[in-house]
Amino acid sequence: MSESQLAELTDHVTALRAEMKMRLLDAFIVPRFDAHQGEYIAPHDERLGFVTGFTGSAGVAIVTQSEVRLFVDGRYVVQAGNQCPAGLIDRDHIHNHPPEHWLSDVAQPDWVIGYDAMHLPPNWVKRFEKGANAAGASLKAMSENPVDAVWGDQPDEPLGTISAFPLQFAGVSSSDKRDLFLKEMAAEDAALLVETQPDNIAWFLNVRGDDVAYNPMPQSFLLLERSGAAHWFVDQGKFEEGLADTLPDWVSLRAKSDLLESLAAKTGKGARVLVDPDFSPAAVSQRIIEAEAVPVPKLSPMTLAKARKNATELEGLRSCHIEDAVAWIEFSEWLTDTVASRAADGDPVTEFEALEKILSFRRERPGYLSESFHTISCAGPNAAMCHYAADKNNSAPVLPAAPYLLDSGGQFETGTTDATRSFSFGFLPDGYAEAYTAVFKALVALATLRFPKGTQGHHIDAICRRPLWDLGLDYDHGTGHGIGHRLSVHEHPQRIGKPHNPVDLAPGMVLSIEPGYYKAGAFGIRLENLFEIREADDGFLYFDNMTWIPIQKDALIPERLSVAEITWLDTYHEQTEKLVGPRCQDGARHWLADTCRPLGRAPAPWQQAG
Amino acid sequence: MSESQLAELTDHVTALRAEMKMRLLDAFIVPRFDAHQGEYIAPHDERLGFVTGFTGSAGVAIVTQSEVRLFVDGRYVVQAGNQCPAGLIDRDHIHNHPPEHWLSDVAQPDWVIGYDAMHLPPNWVKRFEKGANAAGASLKAMSENPVDAVWGDQPDEPLGTISAFPLQFAGVSSSDKRDLFLKEMAAEDAALLVETQPDNIAWFLNVRGDDVAYNPMPQSFLLLERSGAAHWFVDQGKFEEGLADTLPDWVSLRAKSDLLESLAAKTGKGARVLVDPDFSPAAVSQRIIEAEAVPVPKLSPMTLAKARKNATELEGLRSCHIEDAVAWIEFSEWLTDTVASRAADGDPVTEFEALEKILSFRRERPGYLSESFHTISCAGPNAAMCHYAADKNNSAPVLPAAPYLLDSGGQFETGTTDATRSFSFGFLPDGYAEAYTAVFKALVALATLRFPKGTQGHHIDAICRRPLWDLGLDYDHGTGHGIGHRLSVHEHPQRIGKPHNPVDLAPGMVLSIEPGYYKAGAFGIRLENLFEIREADDGFLYFDNMTWIPIQKDALIPERLSVAEITWLDTYHEQTEKLVGPRCQDGARHWLADTCRPLGRAPAPWQQAG
Repeated sequence: MSESQLAELTDHVTALRAEMKMRLLDAFIVPRFDAHQGEYIAPHDERLGFVTGFTGSAGVAIVTQSEVRLFVDGRYVVQAGNQCPAGLIDRDHIHNHPPEHWLSDVAQPDWVIGYDAMHLPPNWVKRFEKGANAAGASLKAMSENPVDAVWGDQPDEPLGTISAFPLQFAGVSSSDKRDLFLKEMAAEDAALLVETQPDNIAWFLNVRGDDVAYNPMPQSFLLLERSGAAHWFVDQGKFEEGLADTLPDWVSLRAKSDLLESLAAKTGKGARVLVDPDFSPAAVSQRIIEAEAVPVPKLSPMTLAKARKNATELEGLRSCHIEDAVAWIEFSEWLTDTVASRAADGDPVTEFEALEKILSFRRERPGYLSESFHTISCAGPNAAMCHYAADKNNSAPVLPAAPYLLDSGGQFETGTTDATRSFSFGFLPDGYAEAYTAVFKALVALATLRFPKGTQGHHIDAICRRPLWDLGLDYDHGTGHGIGHRLSVHEHPQRIGKPHNPVDLAPGMVLSIEPGYYKAGAFGIRLENLFEIREADDGFLYFDNMTWIPIQKDALIPERLSVAEITWLDTYHEQTEKLVGPRCQDGARHWLADTCRPLGRAPAPWQQAG
Repeated sequence: MSESQLAELTDHVTALRAEMKMRLLDAFIVPRFDAHQGEYIAPHDERLGFVTGFTGSAGVAIVTQSEVRLFVDGRYVVQAGNQCPAGLIDRDHIHNHPPEHWLSDVAQPDWVIGYDAMHLPPNWVKRFEKGANAAGASLKAMSENPVDAVWGDQPDEPLGTISAFPLQFAGVSSSDKRDLFLKEMAAEDAALLVETQPDNIAWFLNVRGDDVAYNPMPQSFLLLERSGAAHWFVDQGKFEEGLADTLPDWVSLRAKSDLLESLAAKTGKGARVLVDPDFSPAAVSQRIIEAEAVPVPKLSPMTLAKARKNATELEGLRSCHIEDAVAWIEFSEWLTDTVASRAADGDPVTEFEALEKILSFRRERPGYLSESFHTISCAGPNAAMCHYAADKNNSAPVLPAAPYLLDSGGQFETGTTDATRSFSFGFLPDGYAEAYTAVFKALVALATLRFPKGTQGHHIDAICRRPLWDLGLDYDHGTGHGIGHRLSVHEHPQRIGKPHNPVDLAPGMVLSIEPGYYKAGAFGIRLENLFEIREADDGFLYFDNMTWIPIQKDALIPERLSVAEITWLDTYHEQTEKLVGPRCQDGARHWLADTCRPLGRAPAPWQQAG
């Protein structure tokens, strides 16, 4: 970090500490969250970055007069190390050393610890309260954020245009969706439902927006009354021409800043209010309690309903994945044809060039709108860093000697895509083929799984890891995440991973399956496809593939593949060629035909069942 | 149920209701628990059976003036239906319709609901409190149990002899074990540790007892002070000659009934006391709170320490499993040689005869002491009932046409055994071979697993079920349970199953792996081996087999087996013959050699890796 950057960061911390003194705060909690508790935030909300320099997608800092302590998870330990000057910013692992424990150690009995009640969800406040109380200190919700007070050139709130999302893509009208929630409110005897997650509201009202990078939804809040009346707290200045007229008559418009006031006005004494304890501002629950009403903490019913895609959404996802595959195949042809020759000419392809290439191919596809996340394009050792981002001015060359990894996806009119492929160019580093083969086996292990209703993501995570475990290998990230329908590329609550996730996998949910292996200093491997969960005739569930991008065979060790795995691969390639080939240009189509040739091997007949 | 039984049960309920009236109770909770919250109880504690007739190992009843409602889990729905007369005893599924919900529905605002604070753990009391409070009713801890008051011929408390468990079997002295717990208490800043689980205390003090069927440990309580002094609350009348002298000098003896009083005397204001919230009487925590001390709810450190067997315990378990295998092999030879001929002679073997047979063979083994649970011996459709018990006077014939299942184990000087095998006799019912093959594949799936530290039972359960899921089948019980060392055959906290179980699988833990399939009205299949968890050189963990009993090959469909599965089976049989053969009589040894012949099939070379 440069001298000037360090000086700047130091000024930020000094100014914040002065502000804290003025407000009689001994400590202030700066989470990475904004008021919507999502993964992506607007520049306006980069408070954690302003105070610590850290720009990762998750973390929290606690600022005292003597220390700034930043807590991040395993994905971001390295990045935080690079971005945050030691001495000024101390760091801890958020799981191994939870911030509330640190707080209880450093806090003095008389301390007042401030936080912005719009930026922490109730369950996080509970944790910090526990830590503060253990030290005899007290937590204080601030209505004005001290960081904003000292952030001179804080960017404005985003003003992305909000447009209607046509029924032909959405499949179900807002009014029909509303029926579900009114039923649920009746069942819970709830007078009110508070929704503060932008993707839930965009999905519910069939609109899309443009406030935050990669996430085509507007920042807004919503209250749904038992009567059926909904109040949308949103900046109407963002509306495209005529949008207001397309909204259902049961939706009334309010200023985004009016949420808490209206909430207080609408919650009678004793009224039960549905609110998500993990994905809502604590200020909401606090206001409900002040009104002597009863917050009912519950996973938002919109989150669950949105997760199970309807037939139209699924059809849209399938079709945009075919278009996305065309771009991937054109890219793959270009990459595999170009890397060796360009390297030989002393003008190697660069990571950034490859990144721009996949985007340029994708831009050509009908219905393409924008990226669904920042494409990860990395060669050799860089691929071992799960959140590596190629820098335009300083990106590594893609050379035949070092495998390459691309993780890229797009927002299309009819859905969201996300895929990862690993490429090698003839020269395989030690252990690469073994690991690549294991990662392939891991993908197939879940791709071919049948499971009963009631199965949850943490139940099947190990089925994917087993081929790596067999070799004493593993990967330090989840196995799969949910995907939005032209919404967030990472969508909860469905998830496949080790942590307990009490959400039944259900038909209509769309998830990624993305096992990997990362050898520090050497290479990284990841294969990622998206799958829709479907129900078979016998009531069992299975993963139905949506991603049709060839899987490079060069590094596969056939002797290590079962008949079932070989059959899966050959069938997958056969279908890929059939589905995507016709949409490709001649060059790419021929490359595809060549790539999709079966690995096939006649097994001993008694081995048919693998 | 006979008229007289019905009349008797009705009298019990009537008497209890009268007693409740006298004590001003509107409802009384009768759990199956005794003061030790274990799986097995003494006749003295069969209160749930006295009130409802239900004799299963888990359940709870709530008695009001108008209703008796019994709650049991899936294993016991059928049994409860048979044992409890409808009309007098209503029944519910304890998971689908939790008792506290029912309580909140029926309770009136002014109700007083009684429970015996020695027979419900704190976490259960919390649940009932929630239910009662939701109805505005109140819960009342009773020091005298109303059931005991009306139970005229209640059996006395058990008086099983307590004997020393020699160091040569225990491996670690009580004093060395104590060091662990004193460290843990220091780390938790705890002044006192309360232990109320008989197996933990028996393991800690290196004693064994005989109060409860199948469970060789005495009912007792224990307090461990930070100073190192321990107070053992136990009936000294049970001591074998000279036992008192063999106890460490830091152990003082008290009457079992003195626990709560001493607890109050020993807990100063503000003192922290370690107590297990799931496996201790609520009365303990309540007494701690009355003393203005602080109960620290935590899985008992003794439970965790006991779960990781030491080298001596493991050696003892391995050796008694060899002896147990001899009995199984002799039984298997007898069964497979006898079933057809006896059936032909019109004098078929019966389930009960087979049960007595395995016991008689086991009685012959050196070191054998007693059964570790009631042997499950069932033919044909009876095997589809997971908790079927053959009745001496009325047990089904074992016929060639119907497969047979035996689940049996013993307490030996040096450990505890538990195994299950399924036998067929040439005639296979529809679907039997497919299911048997899948159950075998399920066993091998975990038997061959390698997994990293931090893996927990619910992570790997699905790996075992997958071969059944592939066929649209499943089993409605856990996959594996912990095993004690000459203690309980079911030992927590380690477990393999669907429910979230936040306990890392660790080296030294011993678990069963027992997949099955049950086709109602037709047959039941289960294969169960015990395994020790060991650590490999690369730090990964794996299951090391302890059970050496041939697995019948007749019903296996070789075409459905992978090379890895066939190799596992052949290697398993080779080792079985090598380890157990030499200890068998000629007849059994020849039968074993024949049975252990390899299924072997030369696979295509490229398939070696399966």
